[in-house]
Amino acid sequence: MALRTKEEYFSNLKKLNTQLYAFGEKVQDFTNHPCLKPPIEAIGLVYEMASQKENEDFLTTHSPFINDRISRFVHIMQDREDLGTRFKLARSMVHKHGACIGARCVSTGAVNSVFAGTNEVDQALGTNYHSRFLEFLKYIQSNDLAVAGAMMDVKGDRSLSPGEQKDPDMYLHIVERRENGIVVRGAKSSISGAVIADEVVVLPCTALKQGEEEYAVCFALPSDTPGLLHIAEAPASNARRFIGDEMDYGNAKYGAHGSTHLIFDDVFVPWDRVFLCGESKYAGSYVNYFALLQRLATSGCKTGHRDLLIGAAATVADYNGSGNAKHIRDKLTDLYFQSELSAGCALASVYSARKSPSGVFFPDPLYINIAKLQGVNAIWNGNYITGDIAGGLVCTVPTAKDLKNDQIGKFVEKYFKAKEGVPTENRIRMMRLIEYLTGQGSVVPMESTHGAGSPQAQKIFIQQSLMQNIDKFKKDAMEMAGIKEKK
Amino acid sequence: MALRTKEEYFSNLKKLNTQLYAFGEKVQDFTNHPCLKPPIEAIGLVYEMASQKENEDFLTTHSPFINDRISRFVHIMQDREDLGTRFKLARSMVHKHGACIGARCVSTGAVNSVFAGTNEVDQALGTNYHSRFLEFLKYIQSNDLAVAGAMMDVKGDRSLSPGEQKDPDMYLHIVERRENGIVVRGAKSSISGAVIADEVVVLPCTALKQGEEEYAVCFALPSDTPGLLHIAEAPASNARRFIGDEMDYGNAKYGAHGSTHLIFDDVFVPWDRVFLCGESKYAGSYVNYFALLQRLATSGCKTGHRDLLIGAAATVADYNGSGNAKHIRDKLTDLYFQSELSAGCALASVYSARKSPSGVFFPDPLYINIAKLQGVNAIWNGNYITGDIAGGLVCTVPTAKDLKNDQIGKFVEKYFKAKEGVPTENRIRMMRLIEYLTGQGSVVPMESTHGAGSPQAQKIFIQQSLMQNIDKFKKDAMEMAGIKEKK
Amino acid sequence: MALRTKEEYFSNLKKLNTQLYAFGEKVQDFTNHPCLKPPIEAIGLVYEMASQKENEDFLTTHSPFINDRISRFVHIMQDREDLGTRFKLARSMVHKHGACIGARCVSTGAVNSVFAGTNEVDQALGTNYHSRFLEFLKYIQSNDLAVAGAMMDVKGDRSLSPGEQKDPDMYLHIVERRENGIVVRGAKSSISGAVIADEVVVLPCTALKQGEEEYAVCFALPSDTPGLLHIAEAPASNARRFIGDEMDYGNAKYGAHGSTHLIFDDVFVPWDRVFLCGESKYAGSYVNYFALLQRLATSGCKTGHRDLLIGAAATVADYNGSGNAKHIRDKLTDLYFQSELSAGCALASVYSARKSPSGVFFPDPLYINIAKLQGVNAIWNGNYITGDIAGGLVCTVPTAKDLKNDQIGKFVEKYFKAKEGVPTENRIRMMRLIEYLTGQGSVVPMESTHGAGSPQAQKIFIQQSLMQNIDKFKKDAMEMAGIKEKK
Amino acid sequence: MALRTKEEYFSNLKKLNTQLYAFGEKVQDFTNHPCLKPPIEAIGLVYEMASQKENEDFLTTHSPFINDRISRFVHIMQDREDLGTRFKLARSMVHKHGACIGARCVSTGAVNSVFAGTNEVDQALGTNYHSRFLEFLKYIQSNDLAVAGAMMDVKGDRSLSPGEQKDPDMYLHIVERRENGIVVRGAKSSISGAVIADEVVVLPCTALKQGEEEYAVCFALPSDTPGLLHIAEAPASNARRFIGDEMDYGNAKYGAHGSTHLIFDDVFVPWDRVFLCGESKYAGSYVNYFALLQRLATSGCKTGHRDLLIGAAATVADYNGSGNAKHIRDKLTDLYFQSELSAGCALASVYSARKSPSGVFFPDPLYINIAKLQGVNAIWNGNYITGDIAGGLVCTVPTAKDLKNDQIGKFVEKYFKAKEGVPTENRIRMMRLIEYLTGQGSVVPMESTHGAGSPQAQKIFIQQSLMQNIDKFKKDAMEMAGIKEKK
Repeated sequence: MALRTKEEYFSNLKKLNTQLYAFGEKVQDFTNHPCLKPPIEAIGLVYEMASQKENEDFLTTHSPFINDRISRFVHIMQDREDLGTRFKLARSMVHKHGACIGARCVSTGAVNSVFAGTNEVDQALGTNYHSRFLEFLKYIQSNDLAVAGAMMDVKGDRSLSPGEQKDPDMYLHIVERRENGIVVRGAKSSISGAVIADEVVVLPCTALKQGEEEYAVCFALPSDTPGLLHIAEAPASNARRFIGDEMDYGNAKYGAHGSTHLIFDDVFVPWDRVFLCGESKYAGSYVNYFALLQRLATSGCKTGHRDLLIGAAATVADYNGSGNAKHIRDKLTDLYFQSELSAGCALASVYSARKSPSGVFFPDPLYINIAKLQGVNAIWNGNYITGDIAGGLVCTVPTAKDLKNDQIGKFVEKYFKAKEGVPTENRIRMMRLIEYLTGQGSVVPMESTHGAGSPQAQKIFIQQSLMQNIDKFKKDAMEMAGIKEKK
Repeated sequence: MALRTKEEYFSNLKKLNTQLYAFGEKVQDFTNHPCLKPPIEAIGLVYEMASQKENEDFLTTHSPFINDRISRFVHIMQDREDLGTRFKLARSMVHKHGACIGARCVSTGAVNSVFAGTNEVDQALGTNYHSRFLEFLKYIQSNDLAVAGAMMDVKGDRSLSPGEQKDPDMYLHIVERRENGIVVRGAKSSISGAVIADEVVVLPCTALKQGEEEYAVCFALPSDTPGLLHIAEAPASNARRFIGDEMDYGNAKYGAHGSTHLIFDDVFVPWDRVFLCGESKYAGSYVNYFALLQRLATSGCKTGHRDLLIGAAATVADYNGSGNAKHIRDKLTDLYFQSELSAGCALASVYSARKSPSGVFFPDPLYINIAKLQGVNAIWNGNYITGDIAGGLVCTVPTAKDLKNDQIGKFVEKYFKAKEGVPTENRIRMMRLIEYLTGQGSVVPMESTHGAGSPQAQKIFIQQSLMQNIDKFKKDAMEMAGIKEKK
Repeated sequence: MALRTKEEYFSNLKKLNTQLYAFGEKVQDFTNHPCLKPPIEAIGLVYEMASQKENEDFLTTHSPFINDRISRFVHIMQDREDLGTRFKLARSMVHKHGACIGARCVSTGAVNSVFAGTNEVDQALGTNYHSRFLEFLKYIQSNDLAVAGAMMDVKGDRSLSPGEQKDPDMYLHIVERRENGIVVRGAKSSISGAVIADEVVVLPCTALKQGEEEYAVCFALPSDTPGLLHIAEAPASNARRFIGDEMDYGNAKYGAHGSTHLIFDDVFVPWDRVFLCGESKYAGSYVNYFALLQRLATSGCKTGHRDLLIGAAATVADYNGSGNAKHIRDKLTDLYFQSELSAGCALASVYSARKSPSGVFFPDPLYINIAKLQGVNAIWNGNYITGDIAGGLVCTVPTAKDLKNDQIGKFVEKYFKAKEGVPTENRIRMMRLIEYLTGQGSVVPMESTHGAGSPQAQKIFIQQSLMQNIDKFKKDAMEMAGIKEKK
Repeated sequence: MALRTKEEYFSNLKKLNTQLYAFGEKVQDFTNHPCLKPPIEAIGLVYEMASQKENEDFLTTHSPFINDRISRFVHIMQDREDLGTRFKLARSMVHKHGACIGARCVSTGAVNSVFAGTNEVDQALGTNYHSRFLEFLKYIQSNDLAVAGAMMDVKGDRSLSPGEQKDPDMYLHIVERRENGIVVRGAKSSISGAVIADEVVVLPCTALKQGEEEYAVCFALPSDTPGLLHIAEAPASNARRFIGDEMDYGNAKYGAHGSTHLIFDDVFVPWDRVFLCGESKYAGSYVNYFALLQRLATSGCKTGHRDLLIGAAATVADYNGSGNAKHIRDKLTDLYFQSELSAGCALASVYSARKSPSGVFFPDPLYINIAKLQGVNAIWNGNYITGDIAGGLVCTVPTAKDLKNDQIGKFVEKYFKAKEGVPTENRIRMMRLIEYLTGQGSVVPMESTHGAGSPQAQKIFIQQSLMQNIDKFKKDAMEMAGIKEKK
C-alpha cells in the first residue's frame, strides 16, 4: 500500500534543509512556524483521512502505473468519474480544513498536465520526456509524496511578453545546459504549498512564441533543493498569529495559507527531472492542461469555502437571535444560488469532459472557465452578504485576552452575549471565523457596511417610503389602464 | 476665534484619565498606542487643516450661537449649503487620511440631532432639555472640542426589543435618578472615535414604546468619566502594528479605526448633561435625526474611500504595466459609476433637504438611505474590482523586513519590480494600501480571485469560446430572419 | 417504424373538430389561422427532421415498451444520457424554429411524470393506474402522436389553496363520478401546444392536502374532445400577423407561440384515460416530476433562444459596422457567460440525475431549479444587451410595405442601409427578428434605452469624466501609501 | 398670455400639409390615424393642463424674452430651480400620459442648446446666429408652439465618421448655399414628436472635424415643409391598434409613441432659420448641450414610467391576491431602489448644475450621464420584476372581443377573475397595461419567465434545498471556529 501516514509526512518535513524567510527573518524550523504549521496540519489531515477505512474509496484509488492504491491527488484521470470525484473531494475537504491543501491539491494539475503535455511533445518531436515523467510519477505515487505545482512567474511588465522584458529573469528560464542537466533562474510567485511539499513541479506560465525557447522549461525538484529560496506571504491575518490566542484566529488549526515565493538562484536540475526544455511551441499545452484541472480543483475548493460561509452566517444569525428572519433566509438563499451556479458549471465540465490524446481526461474548457469566474463572483458577493448578516463585530469584537482579563472579562462576557443560551465565547469565535473567511483584515468594508446603519436598515426605510407612495402609483396605473373605479 | 490647534488637542488628550483596554491589556498612555495613535493623528490633521487660511471657508464657519468662527463639524445645519458642504468635507478629508475621524465627524450628527430632538420634546412637553443642550453646544463650540456620538447598543437577542431582553442591560438605561443627576448602565458598541474624543454624546439606539421609559435617555459626558470603560476593537489589521514596519501598514500614519466598546458601569450623569430622561415617545426622533446626518457623513466618507480605491487600483495597474489596457479602464469606470451613484443620491438628499421644526436642516430621508445602501454595494463591488486589477500580491507580497534583509532583499527588489522605472518599494506600498482599503486580512478572497487564473483569464477564454461558435449562431439567426444569403 | 410524417400530422389536424376562439372569434380552420399556422409548422419541422436519416440517433430512439423506434419526445428516460440528449435536443431545435414546439416538447414531461407518478400510487395503494397509463403510452408511441401537457390552473386568489377558493372551479376538479368515467370542470391556462396536439395530458397543478381530493385528478384526452374549449393567447406580436407582410414578423415561418387556455365545461373522461382520481396525497409527486422535466426542457429551449439572440446581436452589429468594436464583444461575452451558467447547471442536473422508484431518471432538483432561474435572469439581461447593441430601430424600423412603396421605398432603401454591401432588407429583417426575440411590442424599453443617447454613450462620458479625475485620485493614493515621488 | 388651448393646437395640426407614410401607406389625415392620435392627445393634455390655474406655476413660467407667461417646455433655463422643476415636470406628466410628449418635451433641449450654442459661435467668430435664433425663440414662445428636436442621423456604417461614409447623405448636410438660404439633404431617424409638432429644430448629430463643414448645420422648419417626408415607426404594439378594441391597448388614450423618420429630400431653409452653417468646430457644442437637457428630461420621464410600472405591478399583485406577500414587497422595493438611484442622480445634476457662457443653466454632465445609464438599467430590471410579479397572462390574456363574445365571454369572465371583488375586466386591463409598459410584444421573455414555473417557484425550491443542508454547513463552521458543543 503506497500510502504514508500523517506522521511520516511530518517527520520527512523535519529532515528537509529548506531555505525559508518569513516576515523578514530566516526560519529555522518551519514546521513549528506559526504561519506554516496550519497548512502542514491541513496536509497532515489529508494523510490521516486517507488512511481511514471509511474514506478509502473517496480519498484513494488504484493506480494503473504502480498497480497499487494511491492518493487521488496524484492520480492520472482515467475517466469522467475521476474528475467528478476530484471535484467533490476538493469541496468536502475544505469543510474540514477551511484553508489550503495546495501541497496535495495542486498535485493533480501538475502530474496530469505534465503527463499529457510530455506525451504530446514526444508524439510530435520524438523526444522522450514522457518516459522520464512516468518514472517521476511512479516515484511520487509509490512514496505518496506531497507535490506542489509552480506556474506563476513574477511577470515584470504585464504589457510585455517573456522575451520582451528588460530583465530576462522576469519569467523563469534556462541559463545553462550542461551534460548532466540544466541550470534555471527566475522566480515563481505565490505558490500554494510549495514550501511544505516534498516535491515541486515547475511549469511554464504562458504560451510562448518562437524566440522564447529558454522559457519553455518544465521540471521537478525537491522543495529543499540548493539555490531554491522560499519567501513567505505575509498577509495581515498572519500577523495575528504572532500576538494572539488560538481563539482569535478564526480557523486556528488550519487557517493560514502558507504560500511562498520561490526564488531560483541558478538552480541545477538533472536531466531525469526535466520534462520540457526549449520546445516553445508546446509550452501552451502544458499551461492549458494545468489550468483546466486547477480550475476544477479551485471550483470545488471555493464551493467548500462558500458552504462554510453559509454555515457561519447562518450560525451567527442564530446566535444574534435573527436566525428565523425572512430577510436572513433570503440572503442565504441568494448566496447559495450564486455558489451553486459555479458548482453546477464545474459538474457540467465533468459531464462534458474530453479525453486528451494521452488518454487523460480533462474538464470541458468552457464550463470550467465559467465555473471559476462565477466562483469568484460568488465569493465576493458571499462576503458582502455574510458581513451584512454578521454585523460590525466581525471587526470590532474583543480578543480572547479581553475575555479572560480580570478587570473587563466579566463585561465582555456580559455584553457580547446575544441569544439566551449561547456562550459568549462561541459568538466571538464565530465572528472570528467570519473575519477569517471573508478576509476582513481592516475595518473599511465592514465599517462601510454597518457604520450609520446596516443595509437592512436602509432597505426597510426605502420600503417604508415606497409604501407611502404606493397608493398614488397604483392610482395612476389604474387610470392609465382605463379602470374606472378603484377595486 | 474658537479654534484649537492640533497641539492643544493632543495635550488635552494626555491629561485625560481614560480607562482603556486593548488586545486584553490595560493601556497606560493611549496616545502612543500603535492602534490609537493613527486615529489621533487623523483628528490632529483636521485641527491642523482647519487652522490653515486656505481651508477656512471649507472647514470652518460662523456659529450664530457663540457668534464666532467654529469647526464645521460642530455646526448646526442652517441651510442646504451647510449640508452640501458637510458632504464634500467628509469626502475630501478621506482623501487625506483614508481612515476615520469619528471623534469629529460624528459630532455633526450628535449635536444636530440632539438640538432638534430636545426642541421637539420641549415643544410638546414643556421640558427644558433644549436650553440645557444649548449650553453644552456653546461649551463645545467655544472650546472646539472633539465630540463622539454613541448610539449603538449591544442589543442582546435581536428578536427582542429593549424591554423584552432577559438581561435589562442589553440596552443602556437609567438605573437610578438622584437629586443631582442620573445613574446609567449598559454598553455602547463599536463607537468610532469615542476614546479619543473630548466628549461623548450618548443617544438612544432605537424607537421605544411605552414601558421602555428607562431606555429613553440622552446625555453627554467626558470620555474619561469614572465608571466608563473603553475596550478597543481588535481587527487583524491592527495586529500588524505590533510586529511590522510602517511600510507594511498600507496607510501607516492614519490607517487604524480606533473604535471602542463603551461599558457604562453605573455611571453618574449630572442633570445639566441630561438631554432626555424617560420620554420614550421621543427617542425615535433623536435616532432618526442622528441617522440622517450619519448617513450623509458616511456617504461622503465612503465615496472618499472609493476615490482612493480607484486611485490605488489605477496606480497599481500602471505599476504592473497594464494601465492602458481597455479592460482595466472599463473596470475602473464601472467602479466609478457604482460609486457616483451613491454620491449623486447623497447630493439629491441635500437638494431635497427639509427644515425640521427646530430650524435645523436634515437630508431627504429617501435619497440618503438610497445613497448609503448603494454606497455599501459599491464598496464591496469596488473591493472585488480592485482585487481583480491588483492581483494576488495584495496578500502575498513580502514585508519591509524582507525587502531590507541582507540575504533576500536583493531578490525581493529584483522580482517584485514590474514596470520599468517604478521602484519595487512603491509597488509593495501600493499593494499594502490596497490590502488596507479592501480590508484584506486573510487570503481567502484574493486566493479565490487569482488562484488558478484571474477572472480576466476566464473572461478571455469564454470570449474565445464564443468566437468559435459565433458564425453558427449568426447563421441560425439569419435563416430565422428569412435572410437568403450571408452578407 | 412508429413514426409519422409531417404530412400525416398535418392531415390529422385537419380532421379534428377542435373548438377554438382567437381574438374574439370562432376559428373555423385553425390550421390556416395566421397565429396557429406557425406553431403547426414548427411541430411539422420536428416530424420532418425526425424522419431524416442524419437525425435518427438524435431525434429518435428505441422504446422498450413497443420495441420500436420512437420520437425522443415521447420516450421514457432510461438513463442519464437520455436526459442529456433531451436537453441538447431542446436547445438545438430552437436554433431551427426559434419559437415553441410545446405539442411535442411537453410530451416528455407529461409521459414521464405520469409514468413515475402512477407507479408510486399503485405501489402504495394497490391501484392500477400504471397499467392503464402504459396502454396510453403505447398508443401514443405507436402512433407517434403529439401530446401536450396541461398543468397550470387559473388559480383564482393566489393567497388561497384550491379548496379554499370561493369559486371551486378555479382549480380543475372532478364534478361527477360515473360508472364509465368521470366528469371534470375547470380551466388550464396558457397551455403551450394544446390546440395543435393530438392528445392533452392533464395533471394537477399543485400539491394537495386532505379534503382536496376532487382536485387530485390526472387524465388524457384528444384535443378536440366535446366540452373542451380553447381560447387563444393574443399578444401584440400576433396582431402584426393580421396586417403585415412576412418580412415584418421577425420569425415569419415559426414565430408565434400558439398557447391556448383550455376551458373544461363539464368534460367526460372514460376510466381508461384516468390516471389519478382522488388520491390527494400523491398529486404533489406528479407535479414535481413534471416540473423537473419541464425545467430541463425549458433550460435547453431558452439556451437555444439566447444562442439566437447572440447570433442576431452579433449580426446586426456587423450590419451596423460595429461588429469588431471591443465593447460589443464584451457585451456578447457577458450574455454568453450568463447564458451558459444556466446551460451548465442544466447539464449538472443531468450529471447528478437520479433514478426514481419507477425506474425513470429525473434531473437533480437543485441544479435544474438553479438552471431555470438563471435562465430567466439571462433572458432579460440578454434582451437588454441585445437592445443596447441593435439600437432603437428595433422598434422604429419601417415595414416591408414601406420598403416596397413607390414613393418612399427608395428612401427606406437608401437611409436604412448601414455597412456597405449589406442589403437594407437584411438589416430590416434582422431588426424584426430582434423585436421578436426580445419581445419588444411597445416602444417603452427601447426608447428608454436609446432615447437621449445609448448606454454606451453614457459609459463613454463617465469614463472620460473618470480620466479627468484619475491623476488626483492616484496622487492621493500614492501619498497615503507613503510613496514619496510620483513614478 | 402666450398660451394656446388644446383645441388651437389640434386645429392647427389639421391645417398642415404634412407628408406622412405609415405602415407602407400615405396617411391623409394623420390627426385621426390610430397610431398618431394617441401622441397628439398626449400633447393636447399638456396644453390643457397648462391652461389650468392649479398647474400654472408648475407648467408655465415667465419668459424674460417676451415678458409673458409661457410653457416651461420652451423656457430658457435661468437657474437651478428651472432645471429641477423641469425634471419633476417630466416625471409627473408621465404619470398622466404614460407615453411620449416629444413634441413639447424635446423643445427644452432644442431651444436651450441652440441658444447656448449660437451664443458661443457668435462670441468666437462674430457671426449673428444668436440674434436670428432669438427671433425664432420669441416666435415660438409667443405662439406657444410645439417644437420637436431632430438630432439622430441614420449614421450608415458606425465605424466611419460623417465625412468618411461612402454615401455622403448618411448624415444630414448642406448640398447648396443660395442667396436666400440653404438646401439640405439627409435623414433624421426615430424623431419623437416630429410629425405632430409645429416646428422641428434640426441639430448636428455628433462632434465634427475639419473637412466635415457641410455637416455642421442647425436650422428650424415647420413640420410640413415641402420636401420633408415623414415615415412612421411600426412596432408590434401599433399593429394592435388596427385590429383591436381600446381595452386591448394597455394605455389606450395616449400609448403610442409616434416617432417618425424624417427624410430631407433637398429641402430649402431660409437664412433666418439657419443657426449654424459650416462652423464644424462648434457642432459638438450644440450636441453636448442638447444631450445634457435631453438626458435630464428622459431621466424624469423614465422615472415616471417606472412609477407606473411599480403601480401596475403592485395593483396586479393585489388583483392576484398576492399583494401582501413579502417577496412581492421585496421585489417592488428593489425596483423602487433601482429607479430612485437614477432619479437621485438626476437631482444631483440639478444641484451641481453650471451656468454656461450664454447664461443658460445646464445639468452637471457626470451626474446626468450616470442618471441616464442607471435609468436604463432600472427599466430593464423593472420589466423583469414586473413580468415576474404579473405572470404569463401578460402575454396570454384574452382580448376584449373574447370577453364580450356570446359563446366564451362567460368563461373569460369566470376564469380570469382572481381576487374576490375585482372585476375580471380590470385585471385584464392591468395585464395589458403591463404588456404596454414592459414592451412585451412577443411571448419569448414572458414564456421564458413563467414557462415551467415562475422564478419564485425556483427560489422556493432552492431555499428548501439550502434548509436541508444548513445543519451540516453550520456544524462544519462550528467545528472550524473551535466551538465544542452545538448551542
